[in-house]
Amino acid sequence: MRHLLDTQFLAKDDALRILDVAEDMVDSQTREIKKLPTLRGKTVVNLFFEDSTRTRISFEAAAKRLSADVINFAAKGSSVSKGESLQDTAQTLQAMGADAVVIRHGASGAPRTLATSGWISAGVVNAGDGTHEHPTQALLDAFTIRKRLHGAASRGKDLSGAKVTIVGDILHSRVARSNVWLLRTLGAAVTLVAPPTLVPQDVRAWPVTVEYSLDAAIAAAPDALMMLRIQSERMNAAYFPTEREYSRLWGLDPERLNALPEGTMVMHPGPMNRGLEISSAAADSARSTVLEQVANGVAVRMAVLYLLLAGERTHEEREDDR
Amino acid sequence: MRHLLDTQFLAKDDALRILDVAEDMVDSQTREIKKLPTLRGKTVVNLFFEDSTRTRISFEAAAKRLSADVINFAAKGSSVSKGESLQDTAQTLQAMGADAVVIRHGASGAPRTLATSGWISAGVVNAGDGTHEHPTQALLDAFTIRKRLHGAASRGKDLSGAKVTIVGDILHSRVARSNVWLLRTLGAAVTLVAPPTLVPQDVRAWPVTVEYSLDAAIAAAPDALMMLRIQSERMNAAYFPTEREYSRLWGLDPERLNALPEGTMVMHPGPMNRGLEISSAAADSARSTVLEQVANGVAVRMAVLYLLLAGERTHEEREDDR
Amino acid sequence: MRHLLDTQFLAKDDALRILDVAEDMVDSQTREIKKLPTLRGKTVVNLFFEDSTRTRISFEAAAKRLSADVINFAAKGSSVSKGESLQDTAQTLQAMGADAVVIRHGASGAPRTLATSGWISAGVVNAGDGTHEHPTQALLDAFTIRKRLHGAASRGKDLSGAKVTIVGDILHSRVARSNVWLLRTLGAAVTLVAPPTLVPQDVRAWPVTVEYSLDAAIAAAPDALMMLRIQSERMNAAYFPTEREYSRLWGLDPERLNALPEGTMVMHPGPMNRGLEISSAAADSARSTVLEQVANGVAVRMAVLYLLLAGERTHEEREDDR
Repeated sequence: MRHLLDTQFLAKDDALRILDVAEDMVDSQTREIKKLPTLRGKTVVNLFFEDSTRTRISFEAAAKRLSADVINFAAKGSSVSKGESLQDTAQTLQAMGADAVVIRHGASGAPRTLATSGWISAGVVNAGDGTHEHPTQALLDAFTIRKRLHGAASRGKDLSGAKVTIVGDILHSRVARSNVWLLRTLGAAVTLVAPPTLVPQDVRAWPVTVEYSLDAAIAAAPDALMMLRIQSERMNAAYFPTEREYSRLWGLDPERLNALPEGTMVMHPGPMNRGLEISSAAADSARSTVLEQVANGVAVRMAVLYLLLAGERTHEEREDDR
Repeated sequence: MRHLLDTQFLAKDDALRILDVAEDMVDSQTREIKKLPTLRGKTVVNLFFEDSTRTRISFEAAAKRLSADVINFAAKGSSVSKGESLQDTAQTLQAMGADAVVIRHGASGAPRTLATSGWISAGVVNAGDGTHEHPTQALLDAFTIRKRLHGAASRGKDLSGAKVTIVGDILHSRVARSNVWLLRTLGAAVTLVAPPTLVPQDVRAWPVTVEYSLDAAIAAAPDALMMLRIQSERMNAAYFPTEREYSRLWGLDPERLNALPEGTMVMHPGPMNRGLEISSAAADSARSTVLEQVANGVAVRMAVLYLLLAGERTHEEREDDR
Repeated sequence: MRHLLDTQFLAKDDALRILDVAEDMVDSQTREIKKLPTLRGKTVVNLFFEDSTRTRISFEAAAKRLSADVINFAAKGSSVSKGESLQDTAQTLQAMGADAVVIRHGASGAPRTLATSGWISAGVVNAGDGTHEHPTQALLDAFTIRKRLHGAASRGKDLSGAKVTIVGDILHSRVARSNVWLLRTLGAAVTLVAPPTLVPQDVRAWPVTVEYSLDAAIAAAPDALMMLRIQSERMNAAYFPTEREYSRLWGLDPERLNALPEGTMVMHPGPMNRGLEISSAAADSARSTVLEQVANGVAVRMAVLYLLLAGERTHEEREDDR
């Protein structure tokens, strides 16, 4: 792997490879090997054009556990805010020694532009771009589902036969998009549940079933119910239900939690709006995978950085060094 | 020790143990062993809901000298500013691998809530909460006083017989509170000097003498005179003297400095308002311990992190590793 | 070397020594030794009173490749913004263990004050002060010119005979000042090209030739043409040409690029205003050294930190330790 830009075009083999390497990362931590020397001397730059402390810290922790050096570059107050182009920023970071650039950007497609423009040779990881994709989030979600379903026997398995239901503001969610593509690749059946105004217009081209009633979706007994975060900054827009209506119709309240089959896991990418899209009863229940998702997020990001910087490229890189 | 939340309920044995381990830390630095491998693979998160570069850097330096990884989490612009609860933030950080959480919070009691709620198992260090406590500041102050009084013979000693006078805005000062409790535990006699409106109403329940005249307090020849920082944002409040009046009546000006007995040390937690609560003559005199306090702060914080993460828990942790 | 404060008073031997050690740093990286253990246990503090992500990251990368610990101290929201003096901030950082302080400050002369006041014993590196100097920028520029001119045979060489032309807002540019002094010391002939209102009044005392026409300067076939960044915040001042006029008269557009002799290198300290002082044709041409400058910047800063912290001071420091 050279880059991780999306899940839509991520081959099944590559996806499974990331998940399996992430299993190794979890194992090493279980055996209290918290620090691996693998990426010693490598530099990972977190290039964040949007604030996202949570995602930035997860990548930072992942890189440091692999002994890489981490440099955080927040666009605010930097040369970027002085009008520097993405090309110049990226080339500057690579000239300073960046081996991988983890990029969060408000514009859909910015990571792909960075990776395919020929501007830099460093590995590029998409950490969220516009309303497009957030591939490591989908990978950690898939890892979490697989682990809950197959436990210690997870390695090598895909998600064939699993039923996953994603609930909320699909229209603006890069998390939903990345999950839809990856889940399809891994063989899961995906149902989307959303207010009608929050379903994308091109959803017929997606490999999903659309459902407008959360109660109906729950009755269908999915293996995983993934509640999306509601972005409060959108709540006053014309296409959005009120907070109260949203919570009543599409929120996972205690009653709906009770209606869920016992085996159904409850997922949320965080940060949660407790009482809005998810009740505390659901968030803190034994079915909730919220904290597993966070922990698995570090393992998956370790796997991605490993595969980009130490994995398949090793031979090629050695050649480059000569 | 599992946590360091306050000095009010800190046992004398634990307090002395921190001070003695801090002596070891100072020793190792004197022998140019600047980097100890003790906490290699451990992750310390600085979770700061209020800006405090100075305290954050001191903890960061302490953790790095013990070879821990440090992750800085400033609440501003993070998921916290998007309405995430303290519980979710803390659990997220632990899920990412935090072994200790150093927390600065505007609400008195937040660190205790974090430590005792069962939300997380990581060690919690209070780095200042509301107007409640700032225990590492009091520990570094006690360390500094002990060192000045007993020098190389400090180990194991408490502060019996020492007279410490704390001057300034006691009402809003967590530094004062933490010092009062710790100094009592260590056997020192404490006098508070403050404008009448800046003495807490419940001060009669405190193990202190209250005095309104700085000159009288100086005449009583304390071993240590601790000047508190005046927070300029409070200066216009009704209960506050004007800057001029404050400086004239409760500031350590050159005349008062001369009136101090030769052996009295002058302390200040920093940052100083030179010319307001403390004159440059006092701040830069040989009696001033200001920079010793800063240097000792790193050693004390190393001791605290060591005791939380590698100390008493060592046996238990070794068991866990098997 | 104890400090690096400017290039005006930097001895030729010291300058050449920095450039030669930087060659060693480049070599070690070419041989994939990305991490040198030299400064293990040393702490480098980036004390930035002005935002400059680019310069800060370059110093951070340099320090980390030498295995130093790095602490970033941004003045915003810190004790400095609470009115702390430079003296107290610097002494606090040293008390926390800073071995070197890399300072960026809005006031010309602040680094020298820090280094010569006796406040601290740590090494001080000027990372840009007011309109005064930015010595590491000039050193990396000189390194880049020498490398382009002499290639593998650069070591030990000065810039005798080289012709360097600096174009733009000389009046406000610390980069220009540092370059003028260092280039003179290294034996190069310097021409300044600027709008008449942007030439300093005391320029007659400088070891330079002043030229108002960029076309004439280009016709003189310099070895290096250094385009300065135009600070957009100055563009509306009375003494400043309009953006359009500036670009037409002093911008390196494609036509002027073609008029340049083939061997002339095009330099820019970054971040670039493409289309204003430099065209993309020029910035991305084979003559452009922009990215070499960035990469060399890390090597030069490694050399400076090495010489300050591990080089000439070793013996003296050992003495201090006893």
